[in-house]
Amino acid sequence: MNPRDLIQKGAPMTLQTMPRQMKPQPSALAYVPFLSVDRMMQLVRDTGVEPFLRGLAEAIEQDFLRWPEFDKTPRVASHSPDGVIELMPTADKALYGFKYVNGHPANMARGFQTVTAFGVLASVDTGYPLLLSEMTLLTALRTAATSALMATRLMPQGAQVMAMIGNGAQCEFQALAFRAICGITDLRLYDIDPRATEKARTNLTAQGFRITCCPSAAEAVQGAQIITTCTADKRNATVLSDNMVGQGVHINAIGGDCPGKTELAQAILHRADIFVEYPEQTRIEGEIQQLAPDHPVTELWQVLRGTAPGRRDAAQITLFDSVGFAIEDFSALRYLHGLIAQTAYAQPLDLLADPDDPRDLFGMLIRSGQG
Amino acid sequence: MNPRDLIQKGAPMTLQTMPRQMKPQPSALAYVPFLSVDRMMQLVRDTGVEPFLRGLAEAIEQDFLRWPEFDKTPRVASHSPDGVIELMPTADKALYGFKYVNGHPANMARGFQTVTAFGVLASVDTGYPLLLSEMTLLTALRTAATSALMATRLMPQGAQVMAMIGNGAQCEFQALAFRAICGITDLRLYDIDPRATEKARTNLTAQGFRITCCPSAAEAVQGAQIITTCTADKRNATVLSDNMVGQGVHINAIGGDCPGKTELAQAILHRADIFVEYPEQTRIEGEIQQLAPDHPVTELWQVLRGTAPGRRDAAQITLFDSVGFAIEDFSALRYLHGLIAQTAYAQPLDLLADPDDPRDLFGMLIRSGQG
Repeated sequence: MNPRDLIQKGAPMTLQTMPRQMKPQPSALAYVPFLSVDRMMQLVRDTGVEPFLRGLAEAIEQDFLRWPEFDKTPRVASHSPDGVIELMPTADKALYGFKYVNGHPANMARGFQTVTAFGVLASVDTGYPLLLSEMTLLTALRTAATSALMATRLMPQGAQVMAMIGNGAQCEFQALAFRAICGITDLRLYDIDPRATEKARTNLTAQGFRITCCPSAAEAVQGAQIITTCTADKRNATVLSDNMVGQGVHINAIGGDCPGKTELAQAILHRADIFVEYPEQTRIEGEIQQLAPDHPVTELWQVLRGTAPGRRDAAQITLFDSVGFAIEDFSALRYLHGLIAQTAYAQPLDLLADPDDPRDLFGMLIRSGQG
Repeated sequence: MNPRDLIQKGAPMTLQTMPRQMKPQPSALAYVPFLSVDRMMQLVRDTGVEPFLRGLAEAIEQDFLRWPEFDKTPRVASHSPDGVIELMPTADKALYGFKYVNGHPANMARGFQTVTAFGVLASVDTGYPLLLSEMTLLTALRTAATSALMATRLMPQGAQVMAMIGNGAQCEFQALAFRAICGITDLRLYDIDPRATEKARTNLTAQGFRITCCPSAAEAVQGAQIITTCTADKRNATVLSDNMVGQGVHINAIGGDCPGKTELAQAILHRADIFVEYPEQTRIEGEIQQLAPDHPVTELWQVLRGTAPGRRDAAQITLFDSVGFAIEDFSALRYLHGLIAQTAYAQPLDLLADPDDPRDLFGMLIRSGQG
């Protein structure tokens, strides 16, 4: 089903479909399309998770291919003893996007999400927001889409088996992206908490994967061509030790994504060719925070453009040191904005003051109480 | 009317007032209170503009008095040929706030606002947003409240007459703040566009001010103890020339607030004692971008704490070089959050994914389509 064609029964009206007498008083400019969690889930289900992930990966690839056009800056982080709140802005000549995202490892034990996010896409021309969207789900989807996109250039030929160490909230999204984009069919799961593995097994069996639940990380990596590490511990852990990584493997390292949080033994990093999103950020947040600041790395956008090689031979160990970069969120918001254009998924939100006379904000305030 | 007591008929339900069977499926944590433009206008009208401004000034003063407790960073700006989009974050140990704000001088001619804004207050503890609010109106209010708060320490004794050069969207808010907080009763208005002056005259006469409309800026400053400059030109202008500023005057300079945009002749700056919000930011954005980077300035929070003097004598020229700082937005959001607690002003917004099992984001997505 193509969501572009969808005008659902019972869906909230947009400004386009709203009867004239119901149109908001001030002006259409005051309203920002809002995609709630519920609407995002509906959109992803209607589109299909795998088609959505493929569309997202295409959008990310398009934007990485024009990397130099973006205004790039490391994320703006506010750290506290319990976690971090970050703003991740970026822009090209036409669009501006930012994401608000928190990371609070202690949240899970309290029944809160470790990571929640929302974001805004805006017009560079006017500065007006074009879309406000939930991004907790969207971040999980874009992280998985980015991993799978990069794996198309880095995984060994004919890969079918992926080990997944860490079976939390990101696990299923990674699995589906690697099937939709890379052709992975078999998963070998391990988590220090067997309940997490059981949850992933249930969800992914229903999606048609061949699943093997493993009693240790060492067993999970047996026979896998791709190893995805995606744990939530906020410390320098050794999820993967040197002896566990054989020749020719591609490592998709997701969980090492902030200062003091890494997953891989340092020796692995010295044996691997390392690929990163944005070195300025990854050297602070990624696995390579364990290495010298001038350790050679390859930027993903250069691999996608063909100006740097991806995988060169069957014996090479490749490592995608994923931390998540603002351009991926930008791509996700841009993709979403295109996908929901002319549909009723978004709801109009009265977010912007827009008086008839732009200089008469006060008059708008006073008159709003009259009549 | 005290908005804390208000549960309006016909107002949208909050999670507190919502019947149990209507409670949202996932959990209350998924919902973020949202204050729309319409609700903000209603809140300000119900509270009264002047009481609201006084409450806001108190909140700003409280936060400036504990200035060292804040995580401060200059705003993160994304410049384009047509304008700028900025994120302004700050945090204390308990609360995090940020504002999204654009500045597009060409917007007015196209029927858009030059400045629109919205913001979020969040819990540092969990990283979860506590409030999403329109901030176009709130920014106009907090800018005026900050100016008036600072003027209580800087204006000459017994001031009653204020000149206002630039009669755009900020003008009436400044006037009301200076009456509510400083006792100003008489206004002398001038704008290069007589229609702007006429708009301000109409609005402010209805608010009970004594108004004189002046044919020039030079005439407007005659007999005024306070001069407020608030023009929108994005260039180095000379709204106020040296000969127009007599001894003992307080200048409240609002419009010079980004690189290349100033309002005052440099000679005035050399005759005045200059007060700023956050020197690191003001030296880039304020009037003092015209001066040497080590030109002495006094920080407002030190004046409020009493560790630096405000006005010392009747002959001194004082200048508040206002650019707007993130802590003022934080204070405004904090004030708002307190004001609407236990009321129905805010509407619940389904912004955060919050699955029953935090690790089962995918299961939430799949199950949301069933039954």
